[in-house]
Amino acid sequence: MQVGKPILYSYFRSSCSWRVRIALALKGIDYEMMPINLVKDGGQQFSKEFQALNPMKQVPALKIDGITIGQSLAIIEYLEETRPTPRLLPQDPKKRASVRMISDLIAGGIQPLQNLSVLKQVGQENQLTWAQNAITSGFNALERILQSTAGRYCVGDEVSMADLCLVPQVANAERFKVDLTPYPTISRINKTLLALEAFQVSHPCRQPDTPAELRA
Amino acid sequence: MQVGKPILYSYFRSSCSWRVRIALALKGIDYEMMPINLVKDGGQQFSKEFQALNPMKQVPALKIDGITIGQSLAIIEYLEETRPTPRLLPQDPKKRASVRMISDLIAGGIQPLQNLSVLKQVGQENQLTWAQNAITSGFNALERILQSTAGRYCVGDEVSMADLCLVPQVANAERFKVDLTPYPTISRINKTLLALEAFQVSHPCRQPDTPAELRA
Repeated sequence: MQVGKPILYSYFRSSCSWRVRIALALKGIDYEMMPINLVKDGGQQFSKEFQALNPMKQVPALKIDGITIGQSLAIIEYLEETRPTPRLLPQDPKKRASVRMISDLIAGGIQPLQNLSVLKQVGQENQLTWAQNAITSGFNALERILQSTAGRYCVGDEVSMADLCLVPQVANAERFKVDLTPYPTISRINKTLLALEAFQVSHPCRQPDTPAELRA
Repeated sequence: MQVGKPILYSYFRSSCSWRVRIALALKGIDYEMMPINLVKDGGQQFSKEFQALNPMKQVPALKIDGITIGQSLAIIEYLEETRPTPRLLPQDPKKRASVRMISDLIAGGIQPLQNLSVLKQVGQENQLTWAQNAITSGFNALERILQSTAGRYCVGDEVSMADLCLVPQVANAERFKVDLTPYPTISRINKTLLALEAFQVSHPCRQPDTPAELRA
């Protein structure tokens, strides 16, 4: 392993890992990937070695510049401050507020309620309904917000951190069979973003740890 | 109501509202408060008027500089960018990453799992155990992280956004009767912070909408 290269601890299907993979791709940052399988061996995130790296026992975590950062948005903000080009936060503070509001809505208001550990707790028979409720409730709000902030992307016409949160969350919505018809703005932006190379190379279906049957 | 004064939509007991009240107090920003009672009338956050302001139907929301921002951390980051003194994020990007990681751990990894709307869904008989699990699981990680980042406060010796998240979360832990003995670092920092005026004037027991029987 090359000294000094950032190491991303990632799981192909983790929507939070995908956010960071998009950021790394957009900013052209070369990195090593260390896959952490969240279901194999009872969950590799529970190993002593990984817990020492990220006590939250979650992916992603990024080793970079001599530190290890957990929490996808904290990682993206750090990348933005230390590798500012191309920017993922607009220059105008009001637009930055919109980007962070949308990012937090997804990262704090939707994803945590439908992640693996919560779904385990609600029990197999309730998982689908639980996840669908969390996502539709968040998307109802998001669709309304985007109607006033969006241009080509979530906030205006520049790809931002909000877009890095949107696409992986829409993928989760599709996995949980959420009807996306009531969300034309979300759907349109998602489609536009998926055409960009950074969103494609980072896609769950194209990762080193993607199982053969899910590759595309 | 004075023109131009920020308006904070807040609920005395909401831990996310408390985060923002601390930020406003630390930065000495004068504001009007509009109480939104999350339980009265079936929840005032569900009113048409409030939904137009914040489609997520959550407090806090801050009307400021002609915009309305939802999501507590997005609000705090906006205040930090537009009213930078005293700062709530350290100057060093690595320390800023620690502050944001801790803030996101609480705001994305703990609070959303024990908030009012989720507890309604898990049913009254499971609420206490559910909330306790979410908090202890997060605090186990947080205690370990703080052991390497903390000085007097969560990250070094300066009050930061992480501290604004910590104190309200500890208050929630106490409400849900979580045993704090295994968390000496969390407990020590919480106690130190509660001695500061900004944490006292913003405290849930001293808000305009605090019911008489909970006042202190």
